[in-house]
Amino acid sequence: MGRFVCGVDLGGTKISTGIVDESGKVIQSLKIPTNVEEGSDAVISRINMSIDKVLEMSNLKLHNLSGIGIGAPGPLDIEKGIVVYSANLPGWRDVPIANKIKEKYELPIRLNNDGNAAVLGEYLFGTGRGSKNFIYITISTGIGAGAVIDGKLFNGANSNALEVGHMTINTSGPKCGCGNHGCFEALASGTSIARRAQKMIDEGRETIILVQEKNAPVKAEYVFDAARNGDKVALEIIDTEAFYLGVGISNIINLFNPDKIALGGGVSTQMDMFYSKMMQTVTERTLRPNAAICEVVRAKLGNEIGIIGAASLILCDD
Amino acid sequence: MGRFVCGVDLGGTKISTGIVDESGKVIQSLKIPTNVEEGSDAVISRINMSIDKVLEMSNLKLHNLSGIGIGAPGPLDIEKGIVVYSANLPGWRDVPIANKIKEKYELPIRLNNDGNAAVLGEYLFGTGRGSKNFIYITISTGIGAGAVIDGKLFNGANSNALEVGHMTINTSGPKCGCGNHGCFEALASGTSIARRAQKMIDEGRETIILVQEKNAPVKAEYVFDAARNGDKVALEIIDTEAFYLGVGISNIINLFNPDKIALGGGVSTQMDMFYSKMMQTVTERTLRPNAAICEVVRAKLGNEIGIIGAASLILCDD
Repeated sequence: MGRFVCGVDLGGTKISTGIVDESGKVIQSLKIPTNVEEGSDAVISRINMSIDKVLEMSNLKLHNLSGIGIGAPGPLDIEKGIVVYSANLPGWRDVPIANKIKEKYELPIRLNNDGNAAVLGEYLFGTGRGSKNFIYITISTGIGAGAVIDGKLFNGANSNALEVGHMTINTSGPKCGCGNHGCFEALASGTSIARRAQKMIDEGRETIILVQEKNAPVKAEYVFDAARNGDKVALEIIDTEAFYLGVGISNIINLFNPDKIALGGGVSTQMDMFYSKMMQTVTERTLRPNAAICEVVRAKLGNEIGIIGAASLILCDD
Repeated sequence: MGRFVCGVDLGGTKISTGIVDESGKVIQSLKIPTNVEEGSDAVISRINMSIDKVLEMSNLKLHNLSGIGIGAPGPLDIEKGIVVYSANLPGWRDVPIANKIKEKYELPIRLNNDGNAAVLGEYLFGTGRGSKNFIYITISTGIGAGAVIDGKLFNGANSNALEVGHMTINTSGPKCGCGNHGCFEALASGTSIARRAQKMIDEGRETIILVQEKNAPVKAEYVFDAARNGDKVALEIIDTEAFYLGVGISNIINLFNPDKIALGGGVSTQMDMFYSKMMQTVTERTLRPNAAICEVVRAKLGNEIGIIGAASLILCDD
């Protein structure tokens, strides 16, 4: 029997837990609500329960596991395995999650930022294989990222490197959730696609975007659907999205000089709709030698990247 | 007798060559014009001549040197020691500068980007000591930078990491020398201070900026001088400079999560005039945990950073 690792992807609304083998394959997985309002002790108990459950589902015993990796929203103290606090885990303050889980399982436990865990997963088991300087960017309701530099996970001074979502790309841009103006995330996330669509609908622009689901709030995917049906307003919004994605990615290429960037998250599943326009902006705004060496691709790992990434925190030790 | 290294700072207009001891002290140095129009072979001969000369000035022989480090404008192939091409060295194409110099001296030769060399110098012998994730930013006619990550020089995939000058911070900003719009360098370099001043003078704003030197083109230092004398237009320009510097530095802190950033270059010598306003913007735009761990200081190494940085390419092997 090979080696197995447990990966826990702790989010503000759900906990995804899975058993991953050493080839990065998810054997069994489980998704439960976080119920963050019950407090950190209750959440940690639920994590433990989910670990027990996926072990059982996989017909494995604790001694088959070589460790437990946890991806969590930061800021964290990764050395001490502590969630310092988190916008997505309200009420959490200096929660020693790694030690609390270790108490029960007596296994190596690794905690890291969800973005850092994801890049490691995609690096070890996805499109990052063979890359030396690799960036993973997730474009979803927000924009997050992680980097592998010279073959090693780049954490930064306190594991908050690659907070690309809050990089200013337009000083006079719209307000971001962080309070700042013109952040990459405020201009190029899935949320900003929906926001632009809502604005155009409110302005009375003729569009089929909302026809699909009356009175429901606009979602980025409706915009993509409408664009696929040739809707002009939707196509205009996707072009704007492509432009801002291109600007942000260009900045990342100018600064990190990676050989590969993989895009994940919900918006990336529609990459065929904006890739060429996005790359046009990347080419226009990136220094030639940096652009020449960098490939931009869609990530290979899909929804399981949270679990595989968390497991990779242990698997990367090989 | 201790160990000595030769550092060569190759620029588009001048070559600075010096002998540096293992404590990072410049023993002797020399500055000669590059005369780039004479072609790469002629320039390399002049570099060799300058090396011979500083050795002689230092009363040292070749066998006292443990290597020669060269900082040059990129893009370079640092593994092969080649200048691929350079906007600052017109006509240079795939020049194997390291091998050509090695032919004469038979010593270890290291070539790297001038920004990368500078950060290494400031890291080993300046304010970077003790830092683990350190960034050096030079604010001069342009804006360049380099990073030391986990105690190691960060080169990127082809030694062009930290091209921060061409990071877009305002998509609708002014045109940059690189052809792009809204680059950090186009908004916050010394050149952009002078450009703003010229514009205000052309608009007929009342200012003492030009009184100092009639009919000469405005320089950033005149603006600082006028601001020190309470000139309102100059103070307004410095405030704008502080804002854009703050935006760019905030992006760098959000992305690299460094524990220290040192500012060098001509504009940094006036840091007392803009530090507090710049840091106000940094604080406003940087994620709290990233801001909390990062100190922003003025670099310790001054004009000699080019030579010391180049020498550090050899000295860092210890």
